[in-house]
Amino acid sequence: MATQSREIRLARRPQGEPGFDCFAFTTVNLPDPAPGEVLVQNLCISVDPYMRGRMNEGKSYVPQFEIGKPLEGGAVGRVIASQDEKLPVGTFVFSMYGWREAFVASVSSLRVIDTTLAPPSAYLGILGVTGLTAWVGLFSVAKLKDGETVFISAGAGAVGSAACQFAKMHDCRVIASASSADKLAYLRSELKVDYAFNYRDSDPRDHLRDAAPEGLNVYFDNTQGPQLEAALDALVPYGRVAMCGGIAGYNVPVPGPRNLMHIVRKRLRLEGYIVSDHFAELPALLAEAVPPLATGKLVNRETFVDGLDSAPAALLDLLHSGAGNIGKMVVRLSG
Amino acid sequence: MATQSREIRLARRPQGEPGFDCFAFTTVNLPDPAPGEVLVQNLCISVDPYMRGRMNEGKSYVPQFEIGKPLEGGAVGRVIASQDEKLPVGTFVFSMYGWREAFVASVSSLRVIDTTLAPPSAYLGILGVTGLTAWVGLFSVAKLKDGETVFISAGAGAVGSAACQFAKMHDCRVIASASSADKLAYLRSELKVDYAFNYRDSDPRDHLRDAAPEGLNVYFDNTQGPQLEAALDALVPYGRVAMCGGIAGYNVPVPGPRNLMHIVRKRLRLEGYIVSDHFAELPALLAEAVPPLATGKLVNRETFVDGLDSAPAALLDLLHSGAGNIGKMVVRLSG
Repeated sequence: MATQSREIRLARRPQGEPGFDCFAFTTVNLPDPAPGEVLVQNLCISVDPYMRGRMNEGKSYVPQFEIGKPLEGGAVGRVIASQDEKLPVGTFVFSMYGWREAFVASVSSLRVIDTTLAPPSAYLGILGVTGLTAWVGLFSVAKLKDGETVFISAGAGAVGSAACQFAKMHDCRVIASASSADKLAYLRSELKVDYAFNYRDSDPRDHLRDAAPEGLNVYFDNTQGPQLEAALDALVPYGRVAMCGGIAGYNVPVPGPRNLMHIVRKRLRLEGYIVSDHFAELPALLAEAVPPLATGKLVNRETFVDGLDSAPAALLDLLHSGAGNIGKMVVRLSG
Repeated sequence: MATQSREIRLARRPQGEPGFDCFAFTTVNLPDPAPGEVLVQNLCISVDPYMRGRMNEGKSYVPQFEIGKPLEGGAVGRVIASQDEKLPVGTFVFSMYGWREAFVASVSSLRVIDTTLAPPSAYLGILGVTGLTAWVGLFSVAKLKDGETVFISAGAGAVGSAACQFAKMHDCRVIASASSADKLAYLRSELKVDYAFNYRDSDPRDHLRDAAPEGLNVYFDNTQGPQLEAALDALVPYGRVAMCGGIAGYNVPVPGPRNLMHIVRKRLRLEGYIVSDHFAELPALLAEAVPPLATGKLVNRETFVDGLDSAPAALLDLLHSGAGNIGKMVVRLSG
């Protein structure tokens, strides 16, 4: 059997905002699986803002994408040929093999998912790396406690949506920001946040003062930039910031906050993290998130685009200011 | 007995760099001590950079100086009249009653110091709040471990000098910055740091690369500003920053670092603290610091100025860029 797979490779590193010329489509011939390996056909692949960072020239501590190699990322697929009894044909698996239609891999690099509990794409979203990123930031990094007040920037994004809901499940007061009326409506009516505001057409400082006159206990930072500055103003003494991303500066550098003295005066803690350090916490997330997802209490909103060809545009959209997507961006493949 | 005391009050809050018009001298009549109180004559008072921050308009979480009230701060004095047998006449005490010649206070607000182990002024320096500030930042906040590499900005200042020496006592590689040739010589020959550089006449980035090609484990930040930005570049993954002060921006705001994405990518932790939360750690500091101070292995360098009238100039000097003092600034009173 000679299986072909189309894949998307990094063609060049972007300077500033990336364009289509950063991506190259190639068709490769896959080998037959060797013992201990399986052939997986992908059903859906994940598109995430953090991929922008991995497109840059790299240092050793961040595994950057390599030029000429396929873009890595979360993917859910089905085993279609197996040389290992642990993963028979038909098994659904999660992998980090990213933007390709199919691949051959050792079974140890794959994680079996239970598609009777939730649809495959949910394992790219709130039950997968996206949800875990929210979970880890809130509870492991920022040590959010029940009943506290938390501000979540980019709250309508995939990670933000999960964070808003997990915080609500813990009886927290949730303030979230987004960039469009649609997203604000989604935050208010579907995610039930306590206060949502548009960070573009008004000053985040004013909103945080109105929404949390007693101050913020935690800021879940997806943006850096002016919203981080506003949050530093609004945090209470001993407040914590989970530094998850910096979408405000992914394409162009943004000035740093001018009020870092708050960190000293208010004894704040700012801590960055990368979800791959925390995969061991996934079972705890699944235990808490699967039941409400099954009953519809937890929302896993997705934006689907179809076909591998759509992936670059989906990523550029996500990065481009004014992107219209809400929730998790998933590319569906005609598996 | 009607005892008089001269004291220095905050006359007005400074805009930008403070001037002599921020201070007002007043003579007050002290009451006789009531039961449970003592009358203390100060021998020396502390002058510290953090006092600048307390001169600003305040919020509740920072105890700001009040206009028309004496400036608070560390002081060492001797009991000269007592209404409590726990503190008989002649006892040496540390207080936070600040810039005044004498005061009456309840014994519970005073801490007895042992002047047979070290001279009184040492309890304002390396054995007092100054030393504790260094100790807490390195070991409690940044969790510095033996053998790690640490960068200490304003290393020749009072807190910085203590931090350099405590880190050396723990076999760390110590990199320190300062602003003059004298201070660099002091860092190298007296404090025995491994690498010292002038942050003004060269790029801190280049020095940190040369001094720590493997990167920094910890940055003890007294300055914020460009040195914080350079340290964020140089920290290793999981590096820690103890945010102790921001002298670069005490008088005028400085732009924030443009590279906060390092916090995410390298999983850094930045944490502010205020030493008054950590007074319980003083006995641990004394246990470690008194013996080497007695043998001269630990240096408690002091700059003395004489008389209460000298205090404002001493503070302005300390804050003014280009200040020539090295080590702990102490005002000696003619007690």
